[in-house]
Amino acid sequence: MADGTRIERLQDLLREAGHAAMYVSDLVNVRYLTGFTGSNGAVLVQTHGEPVFLTDGRYRDQAAAELAAAGLADVEILVTRDLLGVAAGRAPADLVAETHVLDVESWQKLDRPEASGRLVERLREVKDDDEIASLRRACEISCEALEALLVGPLAGRTEREVARDLEWRMLDLGAEDRAFDTILASGENTAIPHHQPTDRVLRAGDLVKVDFGAKVDGYHADCTRTVVIGSAAAWQREIHAAVKESQAAGLDRLRPGVPVAESNAAARDSLERAGWLDAFTTGLGHGVGLQIHEDPFIASAHPGRLASRTVLTMEPGIYLPGRGGVRIEDTVLVTDPDHHGGEPDVLTDMTTELLEID
Amino acid sequence: MADGTRIERLQDLLREAGHAAMYVSDLVNVRYLTGFTGSNGAVLVQTHGEPVFLTDGRYRDQAAAELAAAGLADVEILVTRDLLGVAAGRAPADLVAETHVLDVESWQKLDRPEASGRLVERLREVKDDDEIASLRRACEISCEALEALLVGPLAGRTEREVARDLEWRMLDLGAEDRAFDTILASGENTAIPHHQPTDRVLRAGDLVKVDFGAKVDGYHADCTRTVVIGSAAAWQREIHAAVKESQAAGLDRLRPGVPVAESNAAARDSLERAGWLDAFTTGLGHGVGLQIHEDPFIASAHPGRLASRTVLTMEPGIYLPGRGGVRIEDTVLVTDPDHHGGEPDVLTDMTTELLEID
Repeated sequence: MADGTRIERLQDLLREAGHAAMYVSDLVNVRYLTGFTGSNGAVLVQTHGEPVFLTDGRYRDQAAAELAAAGLADVEILVTRDLLGVAAGRAPADLVAETHVLDVESWQKLDRPEASGRLVERLREVKDDDEIASLRRACEISCEALEALLVGPLAGRTEREVARDLEWRMLDLGAEDRAFDTILASGENTAIPHHQPTDRVLRAGDLVKVDFGAKVDGYHADCTRTVVIGSAAAWQREIHAAVKESQAAGLDRLRPGVPVAESNAAARDSLERAGWLDAFTTGLGHGVGLQIHEDPFIASAHPGRLASRTVLTMEPGIYLPGRGGVRIEDTVLVTDPDHHGGEPDVLTDMTTELLEID
Repeated sequence: MADGTRIERLQDLLREAGHAAMYVSDLVNVRYLTGFTGSNGAVLVQTHGEPVFLTDGRYRDQAAAELAAAGLADVEILVTRDLLGVAAGRAPADLVAETHVLDVESWQKLDRPEASGRLVERLREVKDDDEIASLRRACEISCEALEALLVGPLAGRTEREVARDLEWRMLDLGAEDRAFDTILASGENTAIPHHQPTDRVLRAGDLVKVDFGAKVDGYHADCTRTVVIGSAAAWQREIHAAVKESQAAGLDRLRPGVPVAESNAAARDSLERAGWLDAFTTGLGHGVGLQIHEDPFIASAHPGRLASRTVLTMEPGIYLPGRGGVRIEDTVLVTDPDHHGGEPDVLTDMTTELLEID
């Protein structure tokens, strides 16, 4: 990692916005800029002058090691329990802070710095090679684990057991963690978009929806597949086919320069033509990176266009309360125009056909 | 759970403070008051009038089910993407909010409500029977898993493998999750208070420090033991004995009515007498419940006294950079005076002797 360049790019954004310094305290942004993975740290970035890192005594050694690994061995590290106070003492009067995450109480203690806006989040939208490699690996591990799980049998096991089995397989394949609590739903529970696994036993005729991912180097995979235990009923085939078509339509618009709203429209139009749009009640997709949900969020109101090297999910679904539901989700890299022609690069590279599992 | 009473107790605190309504948006506090476990929800609690619950479309059904299970079936549930805006529209002018967690940007959009202070956190310090049962179970699972792990052998396995093994055992014993990322450190890594497991292989002569816990019903266990692979060296025995004595001294002061600062003083005085106080660089303990770290925090500056039914950790340590370290930590219930005489009830009931493992 050469994260010095990330701080330099932030300095450029600060200069453009006319700010002298920014207090970065969101831990994901701190990690992005410095490599620091502890639970308490902040970085003061100044347009004139060197950055200063702040943490408490627990993380003194870890911070030194992680900053050095990120090419920031020369950055001064201040050890204190009052990160914000000490940073403010070092900062010029024109200090901006992440008021979208900073709590009101901390902010009121100071001279009420102005909002920075989501400057680091903006940098994070476009991934560098190291980030793409980590995301790709996380997605590969996820798919390999799910494919092994789906050899089956699944019938007779509980949602909780199957979720745990999948998570264990990801760790065994080298994931540092699961990306989020696995959503494993069966039968009528598949109608709940964010179901928590229960002791319900999977049985023939069930839809089984699994929304899961591995985490590698802090980067998240996000993948959903819906399968059937035994033989699929006609209604299950119908809603699965409608979601599959919608997902393919939305995914196809994840290309550089295309308005974000276009993929939203494509996926929704497809569901509408099939007569299922009313049964789709969640968001269509979101950026993925150091956070499982990050900018950009796919929505009709998104004013922007897709940039190359953005990584997003595409995840339409149909949810029929009391009956069941289907979601199909991939994590997708928006490629460079001169890199296989800007074609969407599906990182969760695994069949979206309706599988029938024992 | 009869969480209606929790809301009633919050209404009492609001009346005492002279506030008409509070917007509770911290998700742990929301869960405490309503049983809701989703990732986006808030509750508007009013001194005159019924509480109102707010969430987005993803959690409509889950919120209805969880609130009903908590005895709050009659509470109105508003489904919206703008929780704070809708709540503010329903609230009286005198609305207080959790400014210690609410972000500045949200707060600025409103008429800048006043700070509520940590009212719900204050309620959460004293546990009810259900909470104590969950904490006790989480601690039992933790100890059972560690005892099984320490049958060994450990030598020849990596920190990461052993941490994963322990986590797997907790899940297998019925934990819903690990309480936090397991800290498993070996050899010189034990000098790092919050070490993340690596691929370092455990070998004879190593100290091995494991700080871990199970999660049950949302409640966390927190336990640390330090063992030796093979035979302990004299210096390892010496620092382990000093920590053990300090831990016992601090733990003995976790009694109802005793100043919080007294347990801090007892544990630190013990380390000072042994000549090791300078090598103790972290906090001595903290409350445990729906959060792994919550009020009260054990410190010399804490002005209060321990209440019965508070659950805290006691975790002194000695950290020798480049060489190694020892920490011993228990999760302890402060009992009622008339319940075994106010004796500290160690929920992580497991030996603190220095174990030698193959």
